[in-house]
Amino acid sequence: MAIKKIELRTPYLLFIADVGDQGHAKTGLGIAFWRPELCAGQMRLPGCRADLGLPELDVAAAIAAGVGTVIIGVASTGGILPDAWVPPLAALARAGVDVAAGTHVKLADKPALVAAARDGGAALIDVRVPPKDIPIGHGERRSGKRVLMVGTDCCVGKKYSALALHREFVQRGINADFRATGQTGIMIAGEGMPIDAVVADFISGAAEVLSPANHPDHWDVIEGQGSLLHPSYAGVTLGLLHGSQPDAVVLCHDAGRDDLLGLEGLFAIPPLDEAIDIVLTSARVTNPDCIWAGISVNTSSLDERTRRSYLADLSGKYGLPCVDPVAIGMADITDYLLGHVQ
Amino acid sequence: MAIKKIELRTPYLLFIADVGDQGHAKTGLGIAFWRPELCAGQMRLPGCRADLGLPELDVAAAIAAGVGTVIIGVASTGGILPDAWVPPLAALARAGVDVAAGTHVKLADKPALVAAARDGGAALIDVRVPPKDIPIGHGERRSGKRVLMVGTDCCVGKKYSALALHREFVQRGINADFRATGQTGIMIAGEGMPIDAVVADFISGAAEVLSPANHPDHWDVIEGQGSLLHPSYAGVTLGLLHGSQPDAVVLCHDAGRDDLLGLEGLFAIPPLDEAIDIVLTSARVTNPDCIWAGISVNTSSLDERTRRSYLADLSGKYGLPCVDPVAIGMADITDYLLGHVQ
Repeated sequence: MAIKKIELRTPYLLFIADVGDQGHAKTGLGIAFWRPELCAGQMRLPGCRADLGLPELDVAAAIAAGVGTVIIGVASTGGILPDAWVPPLAALARAGVDVAAGTHVKLADKPALVAAARDGGAALIDVRVPPKDIPIGHGERRSGKRVLMVGTDCCVGKKYSALALHREFVQRGINADFRATGQTGIMIAGEGMPIDAVVADFISGAAEVLSPANHPDHWDVIEGQGSLLHPSYAGVTLGLLHGSQPDAVVLCHDAGRDDLLGLEGLFAIPPLDEAIDIVLTSARVTNPDCIWAGISVNTSSLDERTRRSYLADLSGKYGLPCVDPVAIGMADITDYLLGHVQ
Repeated sequence: MAIKKIELRTPYLLFIADVGDQGHAKTGLGIAFWRPELCAGQMRLPGCRADLGLPELDVAAAIAAGVGTVIIGVASTGGILPDAWVPPLAALARAGVDVAAGTHVKLADKPALVAAARDGGAALIDVRVPPKDIPIGHGERRSGKRVLMVGTDCCVGKKYSALALHREFVQRGINADFRATGQTGIMIAGEGMPIDAVVADFISGAAEVLSPANHPDHWDVIEGQGSLLHPSYAGVTLGLLHGSQPDAVVLCHDAGRDDLLGLEGLFAIPPLDEAIDIVLTSARVTNPDCIWAGISVNTSSLDERTRRSYLADLSGKYGLPCVDPVAIGMADITDYLLGHVQ
């Protein structure tokens, strides 16, 4: 197929600049945690107080190591690229190393960087910008197995759940890909589709491009976006759901959340079976066999004992595996998927 | 609110160029049929075989008549603006008349037209291009009444139904606006939001901008787009549904349609109560009181006797007014809306 997802060349150099703490290097930490095998090293500027635990590379060492892409793994205040970041990035670009950034950092704002990339034949990649020529979705069934994360809200751990589930598949020797739909996920996976930045008419088409036909025993583990219940973003969620034509969905939830994020006091999160009902009805438009395969809950707001009983209660109520993807892991949901999706 | 919909200056000159038959002047015919009071006249080129029944204006007469916008009311083959169209359009633009076009005609492709518009201070308006700075939707309830057309498929008469319903409201002296969501609707209304061209994250926000808070007794009659059941476009439909927070929906259907348009043999249209079920569940996320107010059916595939019994059967089955908006009109649905929406 001629239509390409965003793709980043490996190995990576993670650029965390001069951030004052680990928190501001969150994107870099995520990439180093989930994809250490793709990371050749990190690059820090004087005053940096974060550390990804990767080999320290300067420009020359990064070029010698054959780095394909330097990824800006921090969010800068205001979204502008600080002047101090430009010289090392430009030196890398002039040597042919691609530069990739996510939310709020505007690579094209720096003429010196643009010129260096042109000279070196390097690409400046904004992972928020979708590829061109995405087709309209068609809904035709395609081969391969797909599981999609869906949420009771935004920011409930869909990316983490998908990555943990993918890792579990891989550890069991199952042929599987993590399919990223958001900026950070794309930088972790090295490819993907920023589904919320696609023009509305092409959402499901973009999802179809992201998880194409595959071997019958291959699994795509697809990062979700938004929630069908969220009045800001549900259109994205529905197009992604239709285009992914999942064989199964995993419902992601935050045990400490009563109302939708950003809409507190206005929109309560309904009972989980109500939330999943509309997901399954919609999913079955493009895959009549779609099942609910479990609940992945962020229980960080609960203590250890409460967590165990909370998850056991949920599991008893719905007859499905209910886990915390960090504290418990995705083994039970993986078992369920392998046992129930033919 | 600073965010603007697309707006066209009135009165209009409808430019139907040199089309060979009425069918190719469909957009112009729609504008002349629904908004004769906004149309100062038509402009045709030698060889034109269509006629909108409006006064014939040349460039001088159009300028003298104070035309605000010349609207290209035809679809050209291939989407390119033919050379022969440029001189009259450029002359109008140089005199300060805005030029508006919809699908597939690229005004910016003609340097002579671009220069004339710059000289005359006229705007070249592509009604497919959404306004900038659309906000994220927030879902907060706003005042005023809203009714949204929803469909069992694309192209089932949602625009026609909304326009006919709006006309019925106006004839009864009710304060109402037709809210356009597609290119042709926008040219008819003179304003609107090309909802399928908005970036995915902003669909519901765009719908909120389109039908803002209003007097408690004011009605917005909102043109629908796509269908929640259509695997290509459902994301657009859901964002529009959430953002419109309708008090009522009218289900639009084509009596001659068994399968989704363009997906024949792959996707059957379900029973109408199944189709409306997911619409109401979704609508109630942002308006818990949303009701189903009737069915507007394109029965052009049925003969007169079959039409009557078909509509009577539907009406009996669902206990709602079921009409053909052309053959029967929207009076029954208007009665129902006025009787059931408080």
